[in-house]
Amino acid sequence: MSDTRTRLLTAANESFRRRGFNGTSLKHITAAAGAPIGSLYHFFPGGKEELAAATIESSGDAYRQLFDVMAEAAPDIARAITDFFDGAATTLEETDFIDPCPIGTVAREVASTNAELRAATQRVFTSWIDAAATHLEGAGASSHNARELAMTLVAALEGGFVLARAARDTEPLRAAGRALRRLVEQTLAGQPAAPIST
Amino acid sequence: MSDTRTRLLTAANESFRRRGFNGTSLKHITAAAGAPIGSLYHFFPGGKEELAAATIESSGDAYRQLFDVMAEAAPDIARAITDFFDGAATTLEETDFIDPCPIGTVAREVASTNAELRAATQRVFTSWIDAAATHLEGAGASSHNARELAMTLVAALEGGFVLARAARDTEPLRAAGRALRRLVEQTLAGQPAAPIST
Repeated sequence: MSDTRTRLLTAANESFRRRGFNGTSLKHITAAAGAPIGSLYHFFPGGKEELAAATIESSGDAYRQLFDVMAEAAPDIARAITDFFDGAATTLEETDFIDPCPIGTVAREVASTNAELRAATQRVFTSWIDAAATHLEGAGASSHNARELAMTLVAALEGGFVLARAARDTEPLRAAGRALRRLVEQTLAGQPAAPIST
Repeated sequence: MSDTRTRLLTAANESFRRRGFNGTSLKHITAAAGAPIGSLYHFFPGGKEELAAATIESSGDAYRQLFDVMAEAAPDIARAITDFFDGAATTLEETDFIDPCPIGTVAREVASTNAELRAATQRVFTSWIDAAATHLEGAGASSHNARELAMTLVAALEGGFVLARAARDTEPLRAAGRALRRLVEQTLAGQPAAPIST
């Protein structure tokens, strides 16, 4: 991949994390990438939208791989969960609370306004949920429980970013990591996933 | 409160839910409110930012009251949780997946770029966490557990909106409601909130 294309993707990633999709101008991106506007349209003829789709896809892959690496490095899946939430919290603290995830803000901005970018964010979230569910099943969860827990983990992670950034305090993210570790431990210890009585 | 001011707040609320803060123009708001731009500046001399702060505050109050009402109506706090998540899911389905919450998208957009609006979103999230923690303590949770669960609930709710809107499918939100109901039931049934061993 060309260096310029990589620099443009990196600049878009950082700007989305700081300002979101609608708050990002092509000028922000080309200035940060040290690239002329012509090169942006050379690599991304569809402009900001095509660059955003590529950023969502590449960041989505990177996060999924990070989760795989952490799940395999941890002594158990429950520990991997607190490691992941604590790691995200530390990243927030070290980056002055810029969003760790370039996808979440964009996902909410485009969900009702841009079908192609919405679909790009959906593919990423689905890949994360699938990856987490696979690890949880590998640790002994039923298929039903694994998917339910995986959706809850990804939801709490994305929402944890919102609360932590609003408060400039990572405790909501760390608290969610601890609470969900308990939930996963209790589920794996054999609580049946009983249908909810109504 | 004047009708025009109320219409402007309602229009801002709906536009933030659909397009976020940066995607909303004053034209969107005045057109939807059927109000001239002059009246927007009459009621909100600080323009879009002041209108956004007022929208965040009034919506935050409304949601906190809704949670209180549902917590008091449900037979128990655990049931109130699935009721709340399922209610949000139904709202999403009935509104073509426009965000149920005008605050979450704006919170992420402004967290690193607008200190006053960030503080407004923080006050709202804090009020929700405090309200949920109060209900959980009332149901028997320790103060420590109640705060941890409350943060996890609000995080999963906000993140659940992201996943459900991206997928145009409310299952992530409903799954989080079921999983967190189990977590709350198990916590109230007496699992100690043991310090996480490392």
